[in-house]
Amino acid sequence: MRVEIVAVGTELLLGQIADTNSRWLGEHLAAAGVGSYFHQAVGDNRERIVTALRTALARSDAVITCGGLGPTQDDITREAIAEVMHVPLERDEATVRRITELFAARGRAMPANNARQADVPRGARTIEQRRGTAPGLICPLGGKVVYAVPGVPHEMEEMYTRAVLPDLRARMAARGEEGVILSRVLRTWGTSESALAELLQGRIDALDAAIPGATGVTLAFLASGIEGIKVRLTARGPTEDVASALLDAEEHEVRAVLHAELGDVIFGVDGVSMEQAVARSLVTRGLTLGVAESLTGGLMASRLVAVPGASAWFRGGVVAYDAAVKHSVLGVPAGPVVSEEAAVAMARGARRVLGAAVGLGITGVAGPDSQEGVAPGTAHVGLSVPGVGELSRALRVPGDRQRVREYSAISALDLLRRTLLDLPEVAGAMSG
Amino acid sequence: MRVEIVAVGTELLLGQIADTNSRWLGEHLAAAGVGSYFHQAVGDNRERIVTALRTALARSDAVITCGGLGPTQDDITREAIAEVMHVPLERDEATVRRITELFAARGRAMPANNARQADVPRGARTIEQRRGTAPGLICPLGGKVVYAVPGVPHEMEEMYTRAVLPDLRARMAARGEEGVILSRVLRTWGTSESALAELLQGRIDALDAAIPGATGVTLAFLASGIEGIKVRLTARGPTEDVASALLDAEEHEVRAVLHAELGDVIFGVDGVSMEQAVARSLVTRGLTLGVAESLTGGLMASRLVAVPGASAWFRGGVVAYDAAVKHSVLGVPAGPVVSEEAAVAMARGARRVLGAAVGLGITGVAGPDSQEGVAPGTAHVGLSVPGVGELSRALRVPGDRQRVREYSAISALDLLRRTLLDLPEVAGAMSG
Repeated sequence: MRVEIVAVGTELLLGQIADTNSRWLGEHLAAAGVGSYFHQAVGDNRERIVTALRTALARSDAVITCGGLGPTQDDITREAIAEVMHVPLERDEATVRRITELFAARGRAMPANNARQADVPRGARTIEQRRGTAPGLICPLGGKVVYAVPGVPHEMEEMYTRAVLPDLRARMAARGEEGVILSRVLRTWGTSESALAELLQGRIDALDAAIPGATGVTLAFLASGIEGIKVRLTARGPTEDVASALLDAEEHEVRAVLHAELGDVIFGVDGVSMEQAVARSLVTRGLTLGVAESLTGGLMASRLVAVPGASAWFRGGVVAYDAAVKHSVLGVPAGPVVSEEAAVAMARGARRVLGAAVGLGITGVAGPDSQEGVAPGTAHVGLSVPGVGELSRALRVPGDRQRVREYSAISALDLLRRTLLDLPEVAGAMSG
Repeated sequence: MRVEIVAVGTELLLGQIADTNSRWLGEHLAAAGVGSYFHQAVGDNRERIVTALRTALARSDAVITCGGLGPTQDDITREAIAEVMHVPLERDEATVRRITELFAARGRAMPANNARQADVPRGARTIEQRRGTAPGLICPLGGKVVYAVPGVPHEMEEMYTRAVLPDLRARMAARGEEGVILSRVLRTWGTSESALAELLQGRIDALDAAIPGATGVTLAFLASGIEGIKVRLTARGPTEDVASALLDAEEHEVRAVLHAELGDVIFGVDGVSMEQAVARSLVTRGLTLGVAESLTGGLMASRLVAVPGASAWFRGGVVAYDAAVKHSVLGVPAGPVVSEEAAVAMARGARRVLGAAVGLGITGVAGPDSQEGVAPGTAHVGLSVPGVGELSRALRVPGDRQRVREYSAISALDLLRRTLLDLPEVAGAMSG
């Protein structure tokens, strides 16, 4: 089953907004084992949407269109699909009532334009809309199909997951492309893709040697820039239970191999971010955190407060960009401020000034110029942790100013995470 | 002249990386007055790249392919273009020498694979590569043309600007699509797109009423999310001097209209960010800055230190996420901490603790829960500025936690920028 994505919207062609929908769909189709060989973007023009759809249907088995389902005259994906299907649009009264009720619930009358969102090409089915007003569409064309989903990302994602993917799976089953595909992502930080691939080559060989066919697991590596390398496990099995058990077993194997060589290099599974991993390691140990930053300039703190519920464990931070602030506020002793000693003193100062159990400090040179004779890309992380003591780690980060700052911030968070793993969890400390 | 963009790379289809090149090209083609009706993405597969190219050439006048020019067997854009042109590839010895010398300069021998990067379809011209190893290609096909540029963004952007756009312009001139198109972006913050459009409707009508044809100016509005609304002026004229003079005159008109109604709503031109505008307003007045943040959690500080040379005017920040930190470190008096009084006390505390001339404070509720009985999306900005005194501003921000934080941070920076504009500049304070 080959699925082509057609993103609709003149603003995409003009570069006014990024086409995040095609990327999201590409990633989720791949994780579901569905092939996608072409993507297109096209403007809000009926004739050209028709051209894009015909092109897609000629070279793919299914098409997902995103966007152009709104209420205005610019929104013409429905009309274009009806033209390609050679059928008229028919107004679906149940959908009109639903949209009318939605507006009524907000104390407003439905604008006349919104009734257009209830237009359905004859022979197509609607996908109920649960977050906005425009329903989606499932439009059969011979043995092929066009799905139409809204361009608003959270509406599109919900509709894809609930209706498009199950329908695709049913079609795949009908074509004899049987089975269930599940995937799981193990997120690592601090190791290169090639090092992970080398360590896991034995697993990849073992998986390749297993009986080929409908049941099995594959491993893939996805570089995610500053957020580390993802190891994606994809399992195919006759049922969800079998696929899930395969994933569990392979995750166990991968964790054992990586742990033996690299320690706690896996910081999370699927959507878990580094700051969420840090938050969890603090909460389960009943600890609060204060940070002191210079070159990262607030990046570390702003990542941490992005975790909902951060106020339970995050006390705050000091951005000591000027050296004098390091001395006066944090009590860093006179001397070089880009040093391991200064990083540890910043961590100690953060604990004291912010009244936190754990202190994390980071100092360094983001560039482009050297500072105190220290080259750009040099950073030192300091930690002050009850039951562990004080420690520091030196970093050498390649790249430009922004990369040095981002890499240093996540490195510091990872050092904190790994250090906390050595401390026992506190019974009952984790409430959520 | 209709240009289609074809992005090449399996990683794009799999959603492993975002297709930033198509967006960048779309934006820059539009700014140059070149139409683009379709974009495609295709994987590293010769047959499918050929399909994508033929599709593009059937419906567009020119094609820009990005990616697939590397040295490995996966990189087959050259082969696919040659197939579409029905010509063989020929090795360009001058390019082989150039790549060999590049490796030699790094003390390495050129790997044999890299010689593939010197392969050129017969009849095509190379575009010299100034940042990497792969040259670009200009490949004529009848009256149409395929440009091939690398997928590495900074290589692609440099090559597009230096070679592709001038070649496109020459072809447009040859087709009678004469003239020079220049554009300029005025960046605004704090006003809606519809309000700007209403205020500038008179200008738009006046421009529409001017003699239509090869010479003229158009206005467009581009929403840029949290970074505000851009007003793009595009001028077309017989020469660069004429187009530039048209832009200058229209910028003057637009500034006059907006200033009369909205004050200093324009914070910068083209690539200038809000933090750069703030930096400039501080530097030209010889002032240093310290910030105190709670809900923004370091976002404001990290935006400020992203400006190169920030150490000349940025002293640092205090992230007072816990209320106790506001009292103990910043000296905020006992009482509610989500209030105008607390925001001003934070600004005052930032000046004192960080030894800064100007203090900026921000407090509020990011959500999802209320705090102190205050609803999510409520924020207060406080300022303490020599020669102005202390002032505060209340904000009501719609949206989720992340949006509230980002919107609050840029709002606070904008208040600081506008307040500083009332202070005289210091002669000689601006060195750069």
